[in-house]
Amino acid sequence: MSKDKSQRPKARLPRGFRDRSGAELAAERGLLETIRRVYEAYGFEPLETPAFEYTDALGKFLPDVDRPNEGVFSLKDDDEQWLSLRYDLTAPLARHVAANFQTLAKPFRRYAVGTVWRNEKPGPGRFREFTQFDADTVGSANPAADAELLMMLADTLEALGLKRGDYIIKLNNRKLLDGVLEAGGIALDDRARRGIVLRAIDKLDRLGVEGVAALLGAGRKDESGDFTKGAGLSDEQAHRILAFVAPDAKDEEEHLNQIAQLVQSSATGAAGLTELEAIVRILGACGYGPDRIMFDTGVVRGLDYYTGAVFEAQLTFPVTNEDGEEVVFGSVAGGGRYDDLVARFTGQRVPATGISIGVSRLLAALSARGLNAAAQAPLIVVTVFDKADSPAAFLMVGEMRAAGLRAEVYVGNGKMGDQFKYADKRGAAIAIVEGPDERAQGLVTLKDLALGAELAKNVESRAEWVGNRQAQVSVKRAALVSEIQKLLKRDS
Amino acid sequence: MSKDKSQRPKARLPRGFRDRSGAELAAERGLLETIRRVYEAYGFEPLETPAFEYTDALGKFLPDVDRPNEGVFSLKDDDEQWLSLRYDLTAPLARHVAANFQTLAKPFRRYAVGTVWRNEKPGPGRFREFTQFDADTVGSANPAADAELLMMLADTLEALGLKRGDYIIKLNNRKLLDGVLEAGGIALDDRARRGIVLRAIDKLDRLGVEGVAALLGAGRKDESGDFTKGAGLSDEQAHRILAFVAPDAKDEEEHLNQIAQLVQSSATGAAGLTELEAIVRILGACGYGPDRIMFDTGVVRGLDYYTGAVFEAQLTFPVTNEDGEEVVFGSVAGGGRYDDLVARFTGQRVPATGISIGVSRLLAALSARGLNAAAQAPLIVVTVFDKADSPAAFLMVGEMRAAGLRAEVYVGNGKMGDQFKYADKRGAAIAIVEGPDERAQGLVTLKDLALGAELAKNVESRAEWVGNRQAQVSVKRAALVSEIQKLLKRDS
Repeated sequence: MSKDKSQRPKARLPRGFRDRSGAELAAERGLLETIRRVYEAYGFEPLETPAFEYTDALGKFLPDVDRPNEGVFSLKDDDEQWLSLRYDLTAPLARHVAANFQTLAKPFRRYAVGTVWRNEKPGPGRFREFTQFDADTVGSANPAADAELLMMLADTLEALGLKRGDYIIKLNNRKLLDGVLEAGGIALDDRARRGIVLRAIDKLDRLGVEGVAALLGAGRKDESGDFTKGAGLSDEQAHRILAFVAPDAKDEEEHLNQIAQLVQSSATGAAGLTELEAIVRILGACGYGPDRIMFDTGVVRGLDYYTGAVFEAQLTFPVTNEDGEEVVFGSVAGGGRYDDLVARFTGQRVPATGISIGVSRLLAALSARGLNAAAQAPLIVVTVFDKADSPAAFLMVGEMRAAGLRAEVYVGNGKMGDQFKYADKRGAAIAIVEGPDERAQGLVTLKDLALGAELAKNVESRAEWVGNRQAQVSVKRAALVSEIQKLLKRDS
Repeated sequence: MSKDKSQRPKARLPRGFRDRSGAELAAERGLLETIRRVYEAYGFEPLETPAFEYTDALGKFLPDVDRPNEGVFSLKDDDEQWLSLRYDLTAPLARHVAANFQTLAKPFRRYAVGTVWRNEKPGPGRFREFTQFDADTVGSANPAADAELLMMLADTLEALGLKRGDYIIKLNNRKLLDGVLEAGGIALDDRARRGIVLRAIDKLDRLGVEGVAALLGAGRKDESGDFTKGAGLSDEQAHRILAFVAPDAKDEEEHLNQIAQLVQSSATGAAGLTELEAIVRILGACGYGPDRIMFDTGVVRGLDYYTGAVFEAQLTFPVTNEDGEEVVFGSVAGGGRYDDLVARFTGQRVPATGISIGVSRLLAALSARGLNAAAQAPLIVVTVFDKADSPAAFLMVGEMRAAGLRAEVYVGNGKMGDQFKYADKRGAAIAIVEGPDERAQGLVTLKDLALGAELAKNVESRAEWVGNRQAQVSVKRAALVSEIQKLLKRDS
């Protein structure tokens, strides 16, 4: 290359992006295949939309400005129209449904798995490109559609190897909270006050009932002395909301009765209760009890976006976080009803409900639980003593592959020492050597690299594992495949 | 929605992009899985790089301009650095290798499957987003690495169901042609003349030997009378080149001997011949003869990019094109040696070789051959007579799924007529009905929708298929799953 060093580009990843390889990709592929198998068995159809959408179709223009939101990656096409990379799989679904409404079988039930991009500030563990796995039912207001998604999510988590008790799917309904507010005399179109109430509820875990009560009333002074202005509700109004989100009921039935009392004067609240009951009835009849899917008024995720049922799947087991603290793993999937997305295009409300799995988070969770089972098959590397012999080496790997083994010939130019180093670096289980003396006797040598590595460690605890096994064995060339299978079985 | 119609975005796909669903996605998934299985058995490791690269890392800045090439989708990051979406999987591989050169096991053998984007003018069948499946070996000049890729490609095409004779993989070496030029006294750094020669050779199929000879000499007048200036070679020089690309040899061995004569005075040509012979020797020893992988001097693909061996897999069977003409399907994969990509970053030449499969083209070819086998499993739709009964319907699909069937409950709000229409539109094989009378008797009704559709056609040819089968049958609820399996077996 004639370019001098200063002119050469740097080999670096863009900020917030990463390369992935080997075991991580194999594990993710296994995860995606399992989810897909369950979703297909439920009759959901695959749909793939492009990476790009018109920015206006994504609803991502900045208010009153002719430029896209900075949260999405956008560029101008050569005909001066703005394009953006999808930031989720729901907005493209809405565009697809609106464009094909007449021809789609309805309810339209589709799953989609794909990369989404967020033009956000990257940080440790925060990437600007990641994978989502969604399932949505569009065109049905029937609570059976929600119940189906919840059961499918539970089946998926168990198909991935999670035990009952390792996860809990929480169910709430946005209309219930609206009903409580309305019945308490708080106008739903008083968005500012409603926002303060929502944010207060969201702090229940951190501030407890008293803290939330203060925020619902006049306001609250925190430890530092800072004062947060409250929603200004009366004691009675605040009490209603607390009775909803932090119930003192002894069981789910009593809690539902309390809620019925709270929302009875609100049509919205009553509708929410009817929907909830219909979902719970199906779940109960199919054996999906509160040990798997439970009603929880504390789930307030994305309330501005959702219009009815909301769901969240949480993993309940503890993991160690970056600071070395034990924490509950938390949310890996969520969703709910959204009735307005298609209406953006058509003007007609189309009822829809969906769930979305955050693939990287779920993968990390399964890994923490030792459930990333999709390990790669053991690798066999055939070394090449003399390049003139490489055809013989290729014949060997051909036989091995025909027997279902993962095998490769060393195709570099290195000497034998380099070839063994290569096999080690590749994490190979076995290296094969066929030198001229061996060939003359019709033999090949199998080097057990896992055992060799253990012997090299020279620690006492190895004794049991090593036993009287040999790290190297010469076998008949004709028996190569069966001898490899024997060795792999011994070490597994 | 309060917005009036004029303010609503249009639900439309960006130009040059498309949605894909159902059977096409299922077929592509099957295709990708088969390729992956073969590549994994060969010990290639998966690698996934991000959609974005820095534009300078892709080498896609316009000459002497501080803006990216229009052929790639590019945007400025918030730190003013240009990012581009990858247009192939090789440039990101080079960046990955350059960035991780010290830690990678070498030769580094990786496969990658992913979306690539081209910012080009879209047209019918020409999309700006498509999938590539690549395998590359980086860090080895050993011809065994090329031979391995060629055998892997042949194995892949056969694993996809293509018969020997349906495909041919052609092999050439760029150094041979350079050797012919050099031995003929044509300077390789006379890029303009070399370009004319390359373009002339590329027209061999269309213009024949005489036409190419004219273009290698003084020039050629076409039917319209237009004159194309030639390369200005002497007759003897032109003859050498024609002997290379349009040999009169009776077999491959004689052809190789002729080439040896042509290039013997050129070191480059001799190196090409040695490489070619080493590849052919391995292929021959492993039984990959010229019926699968053949030497063909006519393959001149991307000669400016490749530095040694070049490959192209072609499908030899005829298909009907858009104009209704029978044509040979042609190229579905290609590749070769490229030794300069990593050097862009590091200044050091790193020998590399690779193959790339154009997934959409291969999928279309398999489809034309009736080999898109990954059909979806038959679907069973359980109708809901009364919404109060939906739990019973969910219990039915649960039993079916446990038996490995693909089944769904109708989750919309339609009446029975709508539900049957839905099942038809979904392409369901069977619809299940459990009305109140049936339930009282412990029965359910199975409607054979495929048979029903056939009956509705009212044509004579149906008689044989229809036979004495019934389109509707009532069975014991307890025997539901086994009766469905019986029906599916009957119709398959």
